[in-house]
Amino acid sequence: MSKEIGITVKKNEDFSEWYTQVVLKAHLTDYAPVKGLIVLRPYGYSIWESLKSSLDNKLKSTGHENAFLPVLIPESLLSKEADHFVGFTPEVFWVTHSGNTEIGDRLGLRPTSETLAYSMYSKWIKSWRDLPLKINFWNSALRAEIKSTKPFLRTSEFLWQEGHTVHITKEEAEEEVMAILQIYKKTVEEELAIPVLIGKKSEKEKFVGAVYTTTMESIMPDGKALQMGTSHFLGQNFSKPFDVKYLDKENVETFAWQTSWGVSWRLIGALVMVHGDDKGLVLPPRVAPIQIVIVPIYYSPDDREAILSKANEIAEILKNQSLRIHVDGRDEFTPGYKFNDWEMKGVPLRIEIGPKDLAKGKMVLVRRDMSKKSDITFNETEQGVLTVLEDIQKNLYNNAKKFLNERTKNVNDFEQFKKELENGMFLYSPWCGDQKCEEAIKESTGADIRVIPFDGKRSNLPCIICKNPSITDAIFARGY
Amino acid sequence: MSKEIGITVKKNEDFSEWYTQVVLKAHLTDYAPVKGLIVLRPYGYSIWESLKSSLDNKLKSTGHENAFLPVLIPESLLSKEADHFVGFTPEVFWVTHSGNTEIGDRLGLRPTSETLAYSMYSKWIKSWRDLPLKINFWNSALRAEIKSTKPFLRTSEFLWQEGHTVHITKEEAEEEVMAILQIYKKTVEEELAIPVLIGKKSEKEKFVGAVYTTTMESIMPDGKALQMGTSHFLGQNFSKPFDVKYLDKENVETFAWQTSWGVSWRLIGALVMVHGDDKGLVLPPRVAPIQIVIVPIYYSPDDREAILSKANEIAEILKNQSLRIHVDGRDEFTPGYKFNDWEMKGVPLRIEIGPKDLAKGKMVLVRRDMSKKSDITFNETEQGVLTVLEDIQKNLYNNAKKFLNERTKNVNDFEQFKKELENGMFLYSPWCGDQKCEEAIKESTGADIRVIPFDGKRSNLPCIICKNPSITDAIFARGY
Repeated sequence: MSKEIGITVKKNEDFSEWYTQVVLKAHLTDYAPVKGLIVLRPYGYSIWESLKSSLDNKLKSTGHENAFLPVLIPESLLSKEADHFVGFTPEVFWVTHSGNTEIGDRLGLRPTSETLAYSMYSKWIKSWRDLPLKINFWNSALRAEIKSTKPFLRTSEFLWQEGHTVHITKEEAEEEVMAILQIYKKTVEEELAIPVLIGKKSEKEKFVGAVYTTTMESIMPDGKALQMGTSHFLGQNFSKPFDVKYLDKENVETFAWQTSWGVSWRLIGALVMVHGDDKGLVLPPRVAPIQIVIVPIYYSPDDREAILSKANEIAEILKNQSLRIHVDGRDEFTPGYKFNDWEMKGVPLRIEIGPKDLAKGKMVLVRRDMSKKSDITFNETEQGVLTVLEDIQKNLYNNAKKFLNERTKNVNDFEQFKKELENGMFLYSPWCGDQKCEEAIKESTGADIRVIPFDGKRSNLPCIICKNPSITDAIFARGY
Repeated sequence: MSKEIGITVKKNEDFSEWYTQVVLKAHLTDYAPVKGLIVLRPYGYSIWESLKSSLDNKLKSTGHENAFLPVLIPESLLSKEADHFVGFTPEVFWVTHSGNTEIGDRLGLRPTSETLAYSMYSKWIKSWRDLPLKINFWNSALRAEIKSTKPFLRTSEFLWQEGHTVHITKEEAEEEVMAILQIYKKTVEEELAIPVLIGKKSEKEKFVGAVYTTTMESIMPDGKALQMGTSHFLGQNFSKPFDVKYLDKENVETFAWQTSWGVSWRLIGALVMVHGDDKGLVLPPRVAPIQIVIVPIYYSPDDREAILSKANEIAEILKNQSLRIHVDGRDEFTPGYKFNDWEMKGVPLRIEIGPKDLAKGKMVLVRRDMSKKSDITFNETEQGVLTVLEDIQKNLYNNAKKFLNERTKNVNDFEQFKKELENGMFLYSPWCGDQKCEEAIKESTGADIRVIPFDGKRSNLPCIICKNPSITDAIFARGY
């Protein structure tokens, strides 16, 4: 494979350049003509579709419905919840004209839909009978990024889902927040093979407008933490300004309790970073657009026909198992070129069939996640392939889990904290709960509180900064 | 049912008001805070999801892949194909600011993605090996509507899909145009139970930038034609300005041939208009969010428990057949209220189970498409229900087909043309091919050429306007 086509830097030598090469060269994405915007190419979109389908099924089976909201929100509506508006306003794209006509009340492009959704909900909800209302929106959000942008991780438009629910009781809303966080965790761990830590965000880091934010995060190979999904308890912070209220069973008008939550295509970025290697992408079978590629190997026209025919036969058998399989019958490329090409694209399993294999009634399986070859006979096709794919999915998860464990450390002393941070660690450290200590750490090290574990109280150790009694451990790291 | 909840006008008395009431009261949609924009509520979105899933499967099985393009397109790119730009520019929403920063090259909100897609394609396509390229985008388009807006039929943002393909030969591209038109026709006829006429648009009515446009249309109950999907042959009109070219097998740089095509949520509007009645929505089973509603009927607590338990048992049996079923166990409403409610929402089949039914081991089936009741025993549940649902789907199609036939007429004389037009007809009339005659008809009657049938040459009759020899029959009507 020529340099231009293959990945030319090593993952552990120039992580940032490696990442950019992988997402572009594996045809996941490309830069759009506007700075900060990307397109999702079919290969990347297929991963999004798998992820979406898995999450969508879980949401539907827990009583959520999908709907659509327009992308344009009037400024007057966006500004109705003050904290929320102040948080988002520097990033809003503003529409001022339609054709040659100037628009009076400027229209913002959806940075998130709380304001629009709740202005609708306030019309739709009349009585307790209409609750809970649990609606999800698969759309894109737009936030003008001025800092350095990066495909999937920081772009001015991104694909995501945003869920918005309304409940009669505070308790039910808080249960929803946690149920969603668990659905996110399950989806990411099972589909993307990425283990995550869950907990709360600090007051400083929470979603603007929320009472509190729960989060799921993991550590990337460069030692930086990545926020991979959030689920917010909004309390009545929005129901009051937006009049989201209902008549209770005693016919009394009552403000409802709300949640909102979202995951974005940032998860694709995580997938690339966590599993990729120097050859390129490594995809977990559950979300791989192509799970198996068959590369026929032949040197004569006679062999060609017999081997291609067997390859297609094997492909049909596997398609019947609902597997996504591709036979690479391109005559103009050598088998070696094809191996490199599909390795770069991260296809989990390669099947090679050559003349000797055909004669022996067998084929060679080559795993992408480890350089391990094995033979199976044609009769073993279905079971053999399914077993290996399951094993790849598990192995990728276990490797990532091992990495996360290695990169997670309890630290009680600030000097050690600074040293370990340079090693790219998730640090569990005791914290007094004061935002001043949180800010002091941020200022001197660049680390934030990423996650406050739900069971955060490790011991009675003093706060790592002020030495006052700690109220919890918090997980610190530098973040994306 | 109170007046406020039910439909208060008759379909044939005030069609426009009837339509608006149905789409709002059946909870398909609601008005967003910006004039001309609507939201799609869960009940409406579910119809869109069914339609999307059916079309998406057909597109995938014919080798199309999905992808994502951002909504923002720089003005400089939009203006690259002159005719196209002039056609869309009065409707474009312009982003001029991000936060407080003014943007140099204004950004248009996607009115359609030809320009953006092809600027990407030009980077992706290197050689004949990369073709055909067949990509589809499920997104929304934005066109500022200043004329009277109407939910689903004319809104400033609408959900749709836009397909964009690239081919080596003109023939292959033209085959794609027709293949897509056939897929559209099949989807609309089979899923929505709406028969359509297909053919070409005239030069005057074609898509701006296309060589020619093919279309699928049907007549609505108010006698106006509705364009329900278009598939365009773009020739090399875009490949030249956008540099969509490839190295052929002789290594010669060659411009490619292109197509684009789309259908939108306008199809939901068609569905409402074609099948609805004075009671509200009537949904074909294939796309109904709820295909069957079970209304338990009881007068004592003892009956209640036994009947609800049987209703849930029946529901489980039908769920196992992948049917979408709902048991209406609301105690606060009478059966009569529930009947009206679900009839307004268009649920194709209602099952009633009362104490006498339970005693006899049977239930009552009530069809939404005709006021016909029938009994089946509990043992006949699966087969009985499936058969009725299939029959409803067929019956709705046949009724619509009958209506379309009644509303289609051959007319050779202009006086008769004007008279029949007032009767709300699709008129097949001989046309010389001259745009002047087309414009003369438009001016004096308001009718356009909706469709030029592929087999349009009926006879050697003279043009209905100028009396010169006709080259084809064209189908005229007033349109939406």
